[in-house]
Amino acid sequence: MTPGYDYIRDGAEIYRKSFATIRSEADLARFSDDEARVAVRIIHACGMVDVAKDLTFSPGFTEAAQAALKAGAPILCDAKMVANGVTRTRLPAENRVICTLDFPAVPGLAKEIGNTRSAAALDLWGAEMEGALVAIGNAPTALFHLLELFDAGAPLPAAVIGMPVGFVGAAESKEALAADGRVPCLTVSGRRGGSAMTAAAVNALATEVE
Amino acid sequence: MTPGYDYIRDGAEIYRKSFATIRSEADLARFSDDEARVAVRIIHACGMVDVAKDLTFSPGFTEAAQAALKAGAPILCDAKMVANGVTRTRLPAENRVICTLDFPAVPGLAKEIGNTRSAAALDLWGAEMEGALVAIGNAPTALFHLLELFDAGAPLPAAVIGMPVGFVGAAESKEALAADGRVPCLTVSGRRGGSAMTAAAVNALATEVE
Repeated sequence: MTPGYDYIRDGAEIYRKSFATIRSEADLARFSDDEARVAVRIIHACGMVDVAKDLTFSPGFTEAAQAALKAGAPILCDAKMVANGVTRTRLPAENRVICTLDFPAVPGLAKEIGNTRSAAALDLWGAEMEGALVAIGNAPTALFHLLELFDAGAPLPAAVIGMPVGFVGAAESKEALAADGRVPCLTVSGRRGGSAMTAAAVNALATEVE
Repeated sequence: MTPGYDYIRDGAEIYRKSFATIRSEADLARFSDDEARVAVRIIHACGMVDVAKDLTFSPGFTEAAQAALKAGAPILCDAKMVANGVTRTRLPAENRVICTLDFPAVPGLAKEIGNTRSAAALDLWGAEMEGALVAIGNAPTALFHLLELFDAGAPLPAAVIGMPVGFVGAAESKEALAADGRVPCLTVSGRRGGSAMTAAAVNALATEVE
């Protein structure tokens, strides 16, 4: 087939040029090198360099998340789109990527606890939560419920990426996470967020390869 | 467990309040009712009401896409995250949701045509493309290659959602689609886009239920 349009067709070159554009445009000065790599990949996933200003990395977050992944910790996701966005070949220890949202017990559990299915699904994480990397990219109720599980004495994960998107509870749940302090965390303030940005953060933490 | 945080725990109420907030804040005046429903769901997926101004619906797009779905047309996706974001229970005719990106033939095909795997995966859509709803939410190369397939005489889909995200080719590929005119289309100008916004558009077209 004769190429009819003038565009870059080489995947590696597209990545290289994308990341160079992001690094030339985004203000990454306040980040450590590891945080900047995460920020770059989040920006890459959403197409917006200004999202950098809304990111909050708690002290020790990147170190905790990276160490957990290297040690084989599972990645616990609130949504299948988050789980699906994790690039398996980047993971350092063939880490399991877990999303319990479509487990048969979830609808009944949601009724029982009077919360959404996204929130109830977290109750099935159980002992897997200990030392895990939690990645919440869709549901504010899941992020609020995570903090409720901590209150109830659930095992603590190694680190939490909390980036639900939307208009009801998203900003508030991320504020609550950032203020919580029990687990190192990464959040994006306001309404923006979502599964692509969340998976991008996981992918950046999984390996230093850009 | 004692609820420790004050937030809405009812999924239906969260949707209702989210959509009401979006409709009160977003400028939807230039859209038809159907286009507005699609715009609202796209905004819901990304958390940004101002994205409304960047949406372009070509004449007849919503009608063509809705009719295709009702007639049982498949939904052809460039990325698994797009396919995963389509809510199966909203589909009017148990429509198949197809993503060929991880088919074994794709890496070899990509080498052969000198393009990305995302682009090469479209070559496997074949006759499925006729009358389908195409949903490209990740790779600009896939959207460019779709237009190349049209040039080469491939069967035309009923409608195309073209919303790849990013810094290299995204804006340009969407401009090319909007200018193409062979198939009714929906695009978002600029760098923004992505699998969540694209799946949200499919979900809005699938049923009028908000």
